[in-house]
Amino acid sequence: MNSLRTDNIPPPRKIETTLEYMHKLFIMPNSSDRFIEFGDLLLDMIHDFFQQKGGIHSEIPLKKLAKIFNNIDIPQNQMLIRDVLQEIKGNIINHSVKVANPYYIGHMTSAIPYFMILLEMIAVSLNQNQVKIESAKASTFVEREFLCWMHRLVYQNPSQFYKKNIQNHRFALGNITSDGTVANMTALALAVAKAFPPDGKRFEGIRNEGLPRSLEYYGYRQALVLVSRRGHYSICKIGSILGIGSKGVVFSPVHPYTNKADIDKLWQTIEKIRKEDKRVGKPSRFLALVGIAGTTETGNIDNLDAMAGVARELNAHYHVDAAWGGGALLMENGRELFTGIDKADSVSLDAHKLLFSPNAMGICLFKNIDDSLKLYHTSNYIIRKGSVDLGRFTLEGPRPFACLKPWAAMKIIGRRGYELIFLHACGLQDIFITLIKNDPQFELLNTPELFIINYRFVPKELREMLDRLMLDPRANAEKITQINNVVNEINVELHKKIRVRDTSFVSRTRLESTRYSPRKIVVLRAITINPNTEPHMLEQILVEHRLLGEQIWQDRNLLRKTLHICNKLIDV
Amino acid sequence: MNSLRTDNIPPPRKIETTLEYMHKLFIMPNSSDRFIEFGDLLLDMIHDFFQQKGGIHSEIPLKKLAKIFNNIDIPQNQMLIRDVLQEIKGNIINHSVKVANPYYIGHMTSAIPYFMILLEMIAVSLNQNQVKIESAKASTFVEREFLCWMHRLVYQNPSQFYKKNIQNHRFALGNITSDGTVANMTALALAVAKAFPPDGKRFEGIRNEGLPRSLEYYGYRQALVLVSRRGHYSICKIGSILGIGSKGVVFSPVHPYTNKADIDKLWQTIEKIRKEDKRVGKPSRFLALVGIAGTTETGNIDNLDAMAGVARELNAHYHVDAAWGGGALLMENGRELFTGIDKADSVSLDAHKLLFSPNAMGICLFKNIDDSLKLYHTSNYIIRKGSVDLGRFTLEGPRPFACLKPWAAMKIIGRRGYELIFLHACGLQDIFITLIKNDPQFELLNTPELFIINYRFVPKELREMLDRLMLDPRANAEKITQINNVVNEINVELHKKIRVRDTSFVSRTRLESTRYSPRKIVVLRAITINPNTEPHMLEQILVEHRLLGEQIWQDRNLLRKTLHICNKLIDV
Repeated sequence: MNSLRTDNIPPPRKIETTLEYMHKLFIMPNSSDRFIEFGDLLLDMIHDFFQQKGGIHSEIPLKKLAKIFNNIDIPQNQMLIRDVLQEIKGNIINHSVKVANPYYIGHMTSAIPYFMILLEMIAVSLNQNQVKIESAKASTFVEREFLCWMHRLVYQNPSQFYKKNIQNHRFALGNITSDGTVANMTALALAVAKAFPPDGKRFEGIRNEGLPRSLEYYGYRQALVLVSRRGHYSICKIGSILGIGSKGVVFSPVHPYTNKADIDKLWQTIEKIRKEDKRVGKPSRFLALVGIAGTTETGNIDNLDAMAGVARELNAHYHVDAAWGGGALLMENGRELFTGIDKADSVSLDAHKLLFSPNAMGICLFKNIDDSLKLYHTSNYIIRKGSVDLGRFTLEGPRPFACLKPWAAMKIIGRRGYELIFLHACGLQDIFITLIKNDPQFELLNTPELFIINYRFVPKELREMLDRLMLDPRANAEKITQINNVVNEINVELHKKIRVRDTSFVSRTRLESTRYSPRKIVVLRAITINPNTEPHMLEQILVEHRLLGEQIWQDRNLLRKTLHICNKLIDV
Repeated sequence: MNSLRTDNIPPPRKIETTLEYMHKLFIMPNSSDRFIEFGDLLLDMIHDFFQQKGGIHSEIPLKKLAKIFNNIDIPQNQMLIRDVLQEIKGNIINHSVKVANPYYIGHMTSAIPYFMILLEMIAVSLNQNQVKIESAKASTFVEREFLCWMHRLVYQNPSQFYKKNIQNHRFALGNITSDGTVANMTALALAVAKAFPPDGKRFEGIRNEGLPRSLEYYGYRQALVLVSRRGHYSICKIGSILGIGSKGVVFSPVHPYTNKADIDKLWQTIEKIRKEDKRVGKPSRFLALVGIAGTTETGNIDNLDAMAGVARELNAHYHVDAAWGGGALLMENGRELFTGIDKADSVSLDAHKLLFSPNAMGICLFKNIDDSLKLYHTSNYIIRKGSVDLGRFTLEGPRPFACLKPWAAMKIIGRRGYELIFLHACGLQDIFITLIKNDPQFELLNTPELFIINYRFVPKELREMLDRLMLDPRANAEKITQINNVVNEINVELHKKIRVRDTSFVSRTRLESTRYSPRKIVVLRAITINPNTEPHMLEQILVEHRLLGEQIWQDRNLLRKTLHICNKLIDV
């Protein structure tokens, strides 16, 4: 039974610390049978966890959790494994977020197939370190095979190319990384290396010389990365890390509604920079243009083909951040959404998103395998020159055998299986859109392509006013802003209430790219990828949100606060 | 039974792809009982794997593995989980490196406690994403508690400090990272941020402005990181990433034998840079000085206290890379080795090394918690300003609940248990050193402190010559070099033979810091941390290496090649 709660964990039993006991804890040729015994116990415990009903986030207040995990000292004495597992059950499992819950549609973390747990057991048992063949034998080859699959999925080169390179250790078709941020960092580090190559004379390339000397040597005033306003926050963070600074990441506007990079405005942005270049008398170097295949806030895909053209004209590395959307390439008729992705010099994908692997694993693919050599590095004691070690190409050092999970998932689910999963997600997306559109108190605020829906609750009265005012948005600008401020407040409040109620979960963000642009609009954000989410659940979720929203609207304070606006607007 | 081999995996059974089948694969409230069934099967399979006798690396040639993992297409159709697990057993598990084998003493990847597998099962089942509280409730607090333990282990602040900050969400005591490289990168990104802060006027700080503008604004000609020649190869890689280039990482000499940074020579290095600064008319900015607490090649610890003094004089961030050695702070009488570590502004540790967690997890601790704010970043849709999200401080985005493993290990093993493990490792180290010293055909080439022993096979005849020649190294320089070249070749060959024989494993590297300095000497590298390695195994390993070495020495070709040297030396 699942009755164990935080407060009735039995006190741990004392045990004597001996080396013999320590020996038994470690994996060895005559491995302990306790492993099987505890394994069985744990399988039951995990099984229980998934069968638990109740809230998504557990009711415990954060303050109480802070008190539970409040021991400032490393435990001196050993505890029995059984006791620690009970403590984990009571204090951690019971108070973890049920991200697999089909009503949890707020983040990209969704349900994972249960076989992922089995695969992780294998990966951790083998404990291979992918950095070098000496500690990762078969797994090195599995990683290359998996990278080949992903490369082919994205770039669709002739089979001859893949036959030649699938296990070609002189290059890398791509890198497996700890997450999408490191995948993007890999791509942009490559862009940097390509922009300032060694010239065979005095200059050894930026990886040796550094950014300031490179700019000087090549005569540039600055190095820039271009991406749309929907670019993932990691791009900015990476800009800081790579030394170009967040100011070196230039965000250009998107089309309202579609959230796709506005190519005209992108050129305007570029022209503005060039104008400044002329004034200063030194050009800027465009390191990379980043296209987005699945914006994390709105699930939209840039016009990847048009972006490729821009990158070419700028002589910039073209990176496509498909961390969110990349997996959807497995949909046979989804490919057209991604037209042009094969023109990207590098593409990043996340396995823990649309490949349904556990947190976290990123992938960075290189169109030209020669590019992998631009990230090449070696060391004396591992990843030696001329070795077959994967670590020669990666930004990271030691890495787990994470790719086992998506590799095996491709076999167990199969391409057709993924197709069904995505068809289900598409279906949910369409249903949710319809439900929102048909409800006068909800407003749809994006044009979803990849399973992310932005919407908000708008009290009927305000909605009607807004619609009327929007017939002449310029004349009514001030009033539109005022009402939206109120609606923003309502939706922040609504999001909090949803969290407290805890029977469903959506996230929230703030977008400048709605029909009210450039006003920043608070939106709720739903992601419909959990295969166990059913249409009737989406209905339930919206009903609940509507009820909560109406309650807030009826709240006197808010009413009073908005009354004078209403009065002023009554004659619109 | 464990008879399944690569070549007799049964052909996969065909199954029909339906959405219903897909549903059943995913975790859900009425989760499938198949999970328990497969879990049991897998526990047995893993148990078998650890009981297998035989070679460490599996005999299969790399070329044959390349042919197994040679399918260039993503599988179209689903396969039964059972069939995929059998394939994994035959093709992957059977051909993985047995890093837990007590005769595998060549890399830092060792045996892990079996309960780590159980903990990983829990972590992956919960599938929390540590980036934000909305997808990581209890686990956010566990991470902070664990970071508090590590911080206290390193910095030993008064308990009042930890009581106040253990769950203080406004700061981070440190970051959990995917590995030590990212931990070091976190530290050096912090160093960069501190070196060029915003000045409240025109300059917004390097994270916004970038490195070139920062140098210009503050009037520096370059930014540098200082580390000894034993610095981990990641420091150089990070130099490239951060934009200072590998030339921005200055390696200063170490003392021969001890492999500790030579402080006098460090100052000489600095003075040389300053002299050049004067010539150029612009100073260099020393971003960081990196002390090493456990060099990865030789297991030595810099004089951390003296290094702290240098960093202070340079006004540089003082980082201690304790990725290898940090865990040894758990030894009560090991602390004196680390004297001065508490003066480091940041310290990195790896959980997958001396905390015996699986691959991979790094930790970066901040002495001054205010420093964590210098890495602070937010985003609209997650890690919002004022939130309690861990992701506000990390270089990475999504992160798994990796800290569960070392956190629980601290409870299950306890500080006393770790002490016993380290005492065992110290004992093995001493025994191995004695065995090498007592064998006329082996030469010890470092002064091990933290479980890493460098040695080489030297045929008796050559050893005697070398010893005589080394009485006057300057006069005999040429001859010493020639003999060492031969011994280097023998040891490269020996290492290959050890790999082929496959009953034991040590790694090899090349060191300039032996008594033959500055000659680069090929050394074998043994790491004695596996709790299941016993003294008699070390004896066996050396006997085997000696036999293999003697075989090589007797090999005619090599003999001929060295004959003329011998002839010339016969009268030494």
